[in-house]
Parts: sequence; structure tokens; C-alpha cells
Amino acid sequence: MSNPEIEAKLAPLRAAVLEQGNLVRELKVKGAPEIDVKRAVAELKARKKVLEDRELELTPSVVTFDRSKMEDLLKRRFFYDQSFAIYGGITGQYDFGPMGCALKSNILSLWRQFFVLEEQMLEVDCSILTPEPVLKASGHVDRFADLMVKDVKTGECFRLDHLIKNALEKLSKEKTASAELKAECEDIVIKLDGMNKQEMSDVLAKYNIKSPLTGNDLTEPIEFNLMFATQIGPTGLVKGFLRPETAQGIFVNFKRLLEFNQGKLPFAVAQIGNSFRNEISPRSGLIRVREFTMAEIEHFCDPNQKNHPKFESIADTRLTLYSACNQMDGKSAQQISIGEAVRNNLVANETLGYYMTRIHQFLLTIGIKPECLRFRQHMNNEMAHYACDCWDAECLTSYGWVECVGCADRSAYDLGQHTQATGVRLVAEKRLPEPKTVEVSEIVPNKQALGKTFKKDAKTITDALSKLSINDVNDVEQTLKDKQEFILNLENGSEFKLTPEIISVKHSTKTVHVEDITPSVIEPSFGIGRIMYALLEQNFQCREGDEQRCYFTLPSVVAPLKCSILPLSNNAEFNPFIRQLSTALTKAELSHKVDDSSGSIGRRYARTDEIAIPFGITVDFDTLKEPHTVTLRDRDSLKQVRLGIDEVIDVVKNLSVGRVKWSQILEKYPVFEQQEATK
Amino acid sequence: MSNPEIEAKLAPLRAAVLEQGNLVRELKVKGAPEIDVKRAVAELKARKKVLEDRELELTPSVVTFDRSKMEDLLKRRFFYDQSFAIYGGITGQYDFGPMGCALKSNILSLWRQFFVLEEQMLEVDCSILTPEPVLKASGHVDRFADLMVKDVKTGECFRLDHLIKNALEKLSKEKTASAELKAECEDIVIKLDGMNKQEMSDVLAKYNIKSPLTGNDLTEPIEFNLMFATQIGPTGLVKGFLRPETAQGIFVNFKRLLEFNQGKLPFAVAQIGNSFRNEISPRSGLIRVREFTMAEIEHFCDPNQKNHPKFESIADTRLTLYSACNQMDGKSAQQISIGEAVRNNLVANETLGYYMTRIHQFLLTIGIKPECLRFRQHMNNEMAHYACDCWDAECLTSYGWVECVGCADRSAYDLGQHTQATGVRLVAEKRLPEPKTVEVSEIVPNKQALGKTFKKDAKTITDALSKLSINDVNDVEQTLKDKQEFILNLENGSEFKLTPEIISVKHSTKTVHVEDITPSVIEPSFGIGRIMYALLEQNFQCREGDEQRCYFTLPSVVAPLKCSILPLSNNAEFNPFIRQLSTALTKAELSHKVDDSSGSIGRRYARTDEIAIPFGITVDFDTLKEPHTVTLRDRDSLKQVRLGIDEVIDVVKNLSVGRVKWSQILEKYPVFEQQEATK
Repeated sequence: MSNPEIEAKLAPLRAAVLEQGNLVRELKVKGAPEIDVKRAVAELKARKKVLEDRELELTPSVVTFDRSKMEDLLKRRFFYDQSFAIYGGITGQYDFGPMGCALKSNILSLWRQFFVLEEQMLEVDCSILTPEPVLKASGHVDRFADLMVKDVKTGECFRLDHLIKNALEKLSKEKTASAELKAECEDIVIKLDGMNKQEMSDVLAKYNIKSPLTGNDLTEPIEFNLMFATQIGPTGLVKGFLRPETAQGIFVNFKRLLEFNQGKLPFAVAQIGNSFRNEISPRSGLIRVREFTMAEIEHFCDPNQKNHPKFESIADTRLTLYSACNQMDGKSAQQISIGEAVRNNLVANETLGYYMTRIHQFLLTIGIKPECLRFRQHMNNEMAHYACDCWDAECLTSYGWVECVGCADRSAYDLGQHTQATGVRLVAEKRLPEPKTVEVSEIVPNKQALGKTFKKDAKTITDALSKLSINDVNDVEQTLKDKQEFILNLENGSEFKLTPEIISVKHSTKTVHVEDITPSVIEPSFGIGRIMYALLEQNFQCREGDEQRCYFTLPSVVAPLKCSILPLSNNAEFNPFIRQLSTALTKAELSHKVDDSSGSIGRRYARTDEIAIPFGITVDFDTLKEPHTVTLRDRDSLKQVRLGIDEVIDVVKNLSVGRVKWSQILEKYPVFEQQEATK
Repeated sequence: MSNPEIEAKLAPLRAAVLEQGNLVRELKVKGAPEIDVKRAVAELKARKKVLEDRELELTPSVVTFDRSKMEDLLKRRFFYDQSFAIYGGITGQYDFGPMGCALKSNILSLWRQFFVLEEQMLEVDCSILTPEPVLKASGHVDRFADLMVKDVKTGECFRLDHLIKNALEKLSKEKTASAELKAECEDIVIKLDGMNKQEMSDVLAKYNIKSPLTGNDLTEPIEFNLMFATQIGPTGLVKGFLRPETAQGIFVNFKRLLEFNQGKLPFAVAQIGNSFRNEISPRSGLIRVREFTMAEIEHFCDPNQKNHPKFESIADTRLTLYSACNQMDGKSAQQISIGEAVRNNLVANETLGYYMTRIHQFLLTIGIKPECLRFRQHMNNEMAHYACDCWDAECLTSYGWVECVGCADRSAYDLGQHTQATGVRLVAEKRLPEPKTVEVSEIVPNKQALGKTFKKDAKTITDALSKLSINDVNDVEQTLKDKQEFILNLENGSEFKLTPEIISVKHSTKTVHVEDITPSVIEPSFGIGRIMYALLEQNFQCREGDEQRCYFTLPSVVAPLKCSILPLSNNAEFNPFIRQLSTALTKAELSHKVDDSSGSIGRRYARTDEIAIPFGITVDFDTLKEPHTVTLRDRDSLKQVRLGIDEVIDVVKNLSVGRVKWSQILEKYPVFEQQEATK
């Protein structure tokens, strides 16, 4: 982004964003009416989008990337493909083939090592099927919805924003379209993201938008909840959903987990698992799907102690931060050390900063390119209903910057909601700096009188009284004093008249050493499918001078297979060596593939490159002679060395786990140049 | 089972089974009416059950095991517990806490190494949400159901067999019950498993069974499909289910996987993932649940070549086999080498035998006791609709012998079903021993005449003709000859009269080198939750002389955490050593737990034993002196040794992965006896 020629082209767009950003700030400071602020924010977003689109158009890696070529390779070598294709397929569902599955499993295994092991997290594995009350409390039943319209005759559904966008883009491309109409359409498309139900409905009416498939009329916009519903058990009475995120499983287990951690804060809980969203119109391949794997962390801490013991060890790491402020000013993202970012309050606290840095390190380790990774802060108006600060790790792809990891401060929202819904107090005890004395007011029933008056209801009354808050107790006391009676109303509608003979209020003091606090939650949430997609795209390459020979430069630590074994030809004398090598690689826990199919060695190398195998061992006629040697080839540099058959396994192991670099191998062993040339 | 006293008690029961087994055989040989065979089989099963129940009553490990004590520990230390408990919980759903999750993840990781890596399997990861036509083809929509009845007033559901069992057991315990009634009830309970809908309905009527909760009348038995239904997409028109097994995802991807394997048979595909069954009344903890993790393998092979290249390497392994024949003869399971079992046709083929042996090896590696593991062959009448031979690996628990791994020969059933449903031929090409010449008959349309006569329908007609089988073509030829016309009927109801001017039949020959075959499938299918339950139960122990100190003897390779670090007291001087050890263990990828809470060292050791930590490092006052040393404690033997702080990490690593045994450590380092005694 520092190219002066490009910056010159972007300068007016940056200025336009800045102007609008300042207007928004000004309106907020002035306390302008909400509708004015909203309108200004919509315009700000529109200008930001123009800037971002233009930036992408000028980004060389995005411009030269050939998506269909990569998708063809992914499909052909079955990294992943549409589910149930022989039955016509279902959009938004993908099956991972052997290479995609191994890549995913390697990423997850590294994730466990990186987070669960290294940070001593508690990993859990909770149910996917979730009863309705849990998701009612979390807000998903009421708010997790997109707008759609239906064809009134066929029932075909369309996601409303997509429909309007396509209709207006088509309209503005018509020959008869005036310049004015074109500008109007473009303006609406840009502002769509910020529009509410009524505004979109008005657009539908104004442009008389019909079903694009049949030309039929459309219904009014409908809120469509994105959760998959089902019934748990045979009665049909217990409604459940497939979880839309894994987080809720952790929150409802908070008490057990706190106890496992011996009652102490802070602690972090991790979960890897599938979540489900019934997208109205899934698209963009792995980026917007109906079924996906997440890896989520919930870090529970004292809301007043968000510092982190290991922060110093990572404080000098430089991240690319795209703050809300920069976004409003039309500036680009900035490189800054996380230590400085926290000192300047750009990032809210050490714990958030620590996790952002660990996310950064993890993504680079698996092969995301540093220049294609940034952390974008959510602006106030785009924060989810539960979040109070949020930075997304975004990876650059041909679809633009894609959110791959969210890192949100959910504060006490979720624990509070579940406490309210269940009456189970999801809190931790915090030792007070010094013991304090508190006043206690409680209602003391005269058991004999109570039992005599109310018989079997006595227990219900006692229970109800014991649940009153301190304020309620004071009210009861006042009422008893004023009216010589207090009417207790229960939820089931029954009423009981209580007199001073039956109950009295007792005041006392007690010394407490701890107080209850609802922990804050900081949540890094990884979308594994999106990360995989960005990773594949950023590592897709074609050989110079041969556009048909494509390969993936995936780091060996996540590559689906670590090594190939290729006999030079189908000469039977090679077989014992192939078997020996395969057995030894298995023993060293190195996944590998023997390719003894016909086809030139060059063609077979190319096939192993396509599935990202970083190293290849070739058995040739020199292998038959003593001392037995093989060649070892590096996928990225295409260089080969010759070395002893009993050394090669250790070398591949060390290369695979990153203990040595290929450059060190090149220094140690003689370079070999024959095979690939003879293809 | 070789205890002569026990065998004496079992002898009459064994004889009763044998007698009935012989009767069943005799009826089958005679070709007796099906109803007679069925009745005899029901009686056989009943006698088998009496024998098995008695065997269990006489098994010491089952008798002495205290299930509630173990369940209390599992709950208290959050291995797993009921999901959504703060919302009242859902039966049949469990959340795995940190220890359960780590145990599960270690088992799965070992499974991957044992099967996917070592056997070079193709691992895939397919969608959970499955559209209806897929499960219609597999037979699940029509046949995957249990019988239930509903309370006519409240709608409460009861699984029919459970309901009858409970009602009759209650009835026969009543004081007024005659000996005759008691015997009748007992007889029905034993035969329940083999009863059909009508028979159970008759039992309901005969004993006038009502709802056990309300005493209300019950509906007639209803078939309740055990799959969770939902809608995919917003239209409400695409019905889907949560998969009831992972296998179908593999079958529908068969073509892609065959291609990935370069068209060659045999190959094996593996998948680890969640499946769902909407049990009517889940029970028995982890054994019958609604949501569970499976690890499945589908081994595709030529139906005529079920030998296995690695069979020789495992042929001497001795397994405990409980054949269908032994079951009919009232005999107990027998120990036999798998080589001999295959030679004797006890086990159908080498591939099945190879997988059974690998399952056996895997289960022993993770800690299942050899004396509590057997392979039971399904009898003809209990085979699933797709299977043609099946051996279950069963683990002994306090619930009896529990099926933990199924190992079935599914033959060509599934691929055939999906071929039929989709028209996509799921076959492999097999090279013929020598090329052969085949006759080809095809219908050749006169395009001009066809187009002129049928206009836009011409293409439909050509397509329909090209799909005719060779027999159909011959019929067409004959009809044309006889009647000078052929009426083509299409599925949509349209008819076309074709004359010899419009179509003719051409005969030719061609040479083919390959033939299409539908592969056979051998399927080992692991129920991970059941394996975990059996593993925990078989490894649950209490210290001699202290029944309150319980622990799990899980092998270190699957133990949730490998090592604990305990400071002898909260002396601050210990802290740097604790940190140093924790960092070094993390670097060595060893999961561990620091327990620096207050409490005597003995009490803390006991806490680590409860969560199955196999090794414990203690930092004490001698650690502070140079050369710095620590103690290392073995969970199972309670023995401790003293060794250098810089040696201990390597020792724990080698112990954890099984490279050395504790006995070797005891020989090498001085035994230490102080701490535990001072508690």
C-alpha cells in the first residue's frame, strides 16, 4: 500500500472518507438526532467501500490470481467439493477429501498445541443439539436472522440484500438507463449494508422489483432465523437447534469449569467443533457455508484485571492494525508493536492484545502471508449484540479481506443472560483486599404460626420469602409497619396475607472476605474453513514459464502429506527400497504417498506438487548400488540433493517439523540435477 | 470362565441353549415354516440371555464394581456430565469436560496413527446435514425406527420394549401375583427383543398396560424414525436429516475417492465425526445417547479378492471369538489365532480377519483389558439390513457385554443402492485376465426422419433410446420386425410410435480389456463414547485399604494429562523450578498440570490420581540444593524415584510414549520414599 503511484490514485477517495468520518464525529459530539447519525454512518460506509474496492483493484496479488484455475485443481485432486454431488448437491455444504481433511486435521492439531497445550487451556467438547431456552437467552432465537423475500407463486426464497443488488445492477446496465438512474442505483447498492427492513422494502416498491427467475411478485421482507430447527426426543414438544456457535456450550458449563480450575480466575476454555447456519443463499465457496468447523476460546477474567502475565514476552511483535479511527479517517492500516498499541489504548487491554498477537503468530505459522493479514477493529455500529470491543483478523483473498478470526470482548453479557434465564448464578468469588462488614436483612417466619395458618402452603411461602432481594425485604418491612400486613403474590397467581405475627424482619451484620463477580469474557473465534480457503489461495502458485504446472507452497507443518516416494520406473528391483522407506516413514509418523504409477518422473513430481507434498524421495538405479542412496527434492525450490537411504528419514522428519531448513540441507549434501531434466 | 465351580453352575444353562440351538438348525434344514423358525429363534435368544445374565452374575470384576462411585468421580472432576444441566438438562446428551475431552482427543489421535497413517487410508470429513434422498436410498428413512406408544392425553412417549419390560416386572413383583403369572411375565420379558409390532401390541392389550406416569390409555404402537429431521435452506421444501452414521458420506464420494486412488482397488477410507440418533428413551450413560462420535472405515475391495497383503504379519494373534455356532451351542467364547480362524472359515476372509485383529490391537493399546474383550459374531437373524457377515468387538462392563466396534461385511449393498437412486454407476474397473469380445446392439435413429416426425421431441426420444438395456434393444428389434412399429412409452406419460423408417437396430462386436465391478465394503465402525465408557470402567480402581482414594489406571498414551508438577508446599523458592519444569514439558509437547493449591502433598497426589495423571514431579527442599533434583512418582505402583531436574523431562517423555517402562526407571534411579508417608 506504500506504492506512491497507487497512493496518488487513492488519495481523493481517502479524503472523501475522512470528510465523512469527521462529519459523523461532529454529529455524535453535537448529540444530533439518531436518524441523522445513522444516515451519515451509511454514507461513511459507502465511501469506505469505494475506497476498499479500489484498493483491491490495485493490489497485484489479487489482480493476477486465477481463481477458477485453483478451484479446478482443488476439485480435481479432491481437497474439497460439494456434498452429495451425485444427488445434485446442496449449496453451502462441502465434503473434505483426503487432502483437505489432512490439511484441516493438521491445522487443528497445531491449534491445540499452540493454544490448549501452550496456554494450559481447558478444552471441552459440548453438544451440538441445543434446546431452545439456551439460545433464547443468548439472543440467537430473537436476533440471529437475515431478511428474505419469497416468490408469491413458487415460494422460491431470495436473500433480500443480494436480490436488490442484482436487480439494481441489472437495471443500471440497461441501454435506456439514464445517468441519473445509474447513479441512484449505485448509491443504493453501496448503502444496502446499512439499510433496515423498511428501507429495503421501500426500494423493492420503488423499483418494482420482481422474482428474477419467474417475474412473479414478491412477498414483503421476512426475518428468517438462520438456525436449523429440529425436535429433540419423540414427543415433538422439545424444540432444539443446531448450535450456531460453539461458545454457548462453554458458558452453560461455566460453574463446572470454574470448579475444575479450583475456583480461580483467570482461565481459558477452548472448544473445536461444528456449527451450523441455515444461510438463505450460501456462496463464495468455503467462505459462506451452512456447516462449518470453529475453534473457539473463552477467556474468563476479572473485569478489572485484564492484564496478562505473558504480555511482556510478546509486546514487541508488530501487527498490522486497521483501527476504527483509521477507517473513519480514510487512512490505511498501520504497522505497530502490540505493546505500543496497548499503551496508547488503541487496543483495550493486555489480554486482548496478547490473544491478537497469538492469533497473528498462529496464522503466520500455518502459512498466511504477513502482507495479507490485518486486524480490523469493528466500528461502534457494526458490533454484535454481545460485544464491547472487537478486532477481526482478516486475510486478503480474491473475495477481498475476509474475516477469519474474530477477537471480541464479550464482557459479562453471556454469563449474565444465562444467570437471568436459569436463576443459577454464574459468578466467581473474588477475595476482597480486606474483609468488610455488610448489613444483612432477612425475613424470619414464625414457623408455628405460619404452619397453622397456611398448612401445606407454608413451605412455598418460606421458599418465596427467602428469594427476595434486599430491597424487597426492606419494602416488606415498611409495608408491615404501615399496614400491619403484607400480601405475597406468587407467580402461579396465588396470594397470601402475611401479618407481623407470622413474619418479622431481622437485621444483622456479617463479615465477608470475598465478593461475587461476573467474569468478563474475551473470545478469539477461528473459522477453520475460511482460514483454509485463505491459506490455499495465498499459497497457490504456478511454475514460471509453465502455467499448467500449479502447486501449493503450504508449510510442511500443515501440508496434508509430508513426503512422496517415487520409483524412477516400474523396475521390480526398486520395490524393496520403496517398502523399506515407506515402513520407516510410518514409524517416524510421517504421512506419505508412494506413486508407482506409470508416467514420467517429472509428471509424477508435478502431481505431488499439486497436493502440496513438500519433499519427495526418488529411488533410481544408483539406489541399487552400495552404499544405497536416494534423492530428496524440495517442492518450492525444485532443488534436489543426494543422500544415504538411512539418513533420509531423519532429514525429512527434521524438515517437516521445522527443526532444519532446506537451505541447511543444500549446504550439507551434494546437489543432484538429473531426473527432473530427463522427463 | 474356566473356573470349574462357575462352569458347574452354568452347565445346565449351556445345555438348554444347545438343545434349542439344535432345534433351530433342524427346523432350518427341514425347511420348516418361517413362523416356526422364528418362534424357535426367540426361545433360543431367551435361553442365551439367561445364560449370559448368569455368567455376568458370576464374573468377579462385574460384581465388585461400584458404578455410582465411579460416576460420582467422573462428574466431580468433570470428565463428562449432562449437557445444559443449568437448564434442566437433556437426556442422552453429554458434554465432555477438560479430562473427558483430552481422553477422547488422545484416543482419536492414536486411532489416526493406528489406522489412517499405518494403513495409508484416505481420510475424509463429510457433511452432517444430509438430504432425504440419500438416506432414502440407504434404507434409513424406511427402516431406521423403533416402536413407541404415546399417552393418549399427555402425549408422553415411551419406548415400547422398555415400557412392557417395566410393566411386567412390576406386575410380577406384586404380592397377589401367582407363580404362573410370574413365569409368564418373565418369559415375555426375555423374548421381547425378538417380538414384532403385532406381538407387542397383543402384550399391551393382554395385560392392559397403561401409562406408568398417569395411568392413562396408550396409543397403538407407532414406528418412530430415529433420525433428527430439519429443513435445509429457507424454502421449507428441502428435507434433511442429521446423519445417523458417517458411512453414507463416504459412499456418495466413492467415485472421487476411487479417482484419488488412481482407479485402483483395494483402498480404505476413514472418517471421524459426529452422528445423531433421536433415541426414544436414552439411558445407560454414554452407552445410548443422542449425539455421538464415530470413527468409521470403509474398505473397498474386489468381491472375489478379499485376501490381505499384511495378513501373514498378524496371523498368529490370538483373539477371543464368540461365533454364531458357539452361541447356538451354549458354549463360551474361544481363544484362537486369527490365522486358524480364517483357515477354518470361522471368519469369512483375510480382510475381515485383518481388521478384527487391528481392532483388537488398538483396544488393548488404549487400555481395554484382554479378558474383558471378545468378538461376537452376529447370528443370521440379527444382521442389519445391509450386512452379510458381522463381528462385534464387545467390551465387558457393568451393563454387560457392550458392542463398542462393529466389523461388518456390507458387501455391495450401499454402492448398489446409490447407483440405483442416482443413475451414477458407482463401480470400479477391473482388468480382465485376457481381452474379450462382446456383442453390442444399439438403436440407430434416422435423424432426418426422426426430426421431421417429432420436431422438438426428437432429442427426448434419442435420449430414451440410448438408455435401453441390451435386452430392451433386442425386444425393440423383434417388435419392429413383427409389427413394423414400436411404441415408446416415457415416464412422463407421453407415447411415440416409431417405425423402421425412423429407427433401426445395429449389431457389432467390440474388444474390451476391463469389466465393471461393484466393490465389496468391509466396515469397522468404532463408537468412541462407548469405548471411552468401557475404558474408564475397566480402569477404575480404589487403593487397597482406602476405598475413598479412587483412580484410573489409564495408559499414559491416552491419559488426559501426562504429568503433574507439585511443589511440596507454597514456599516461594519453589516457584522458579515449577516454571522451569512447566516450560520444558510444554516444549516437549507433554500436557501437564501444576497443582500449587494448599493441601498436603498426599491429598494433592490423590487429586492427580483421580484424573489419571500417570506421572508426578515433586519439587521439595532437596530441589533447592545443587545438583537440583526432583522426585518422580508412578500413579499405579505409588513408587517414587529421585533424579536430576534436567533428566526428568526426557524420562517422562519416554514413559509417556511407551519407549521405556516404569520398571526400567526403578532400576536406573534411586527409590524415594519420604513424601507420601509424611502426609
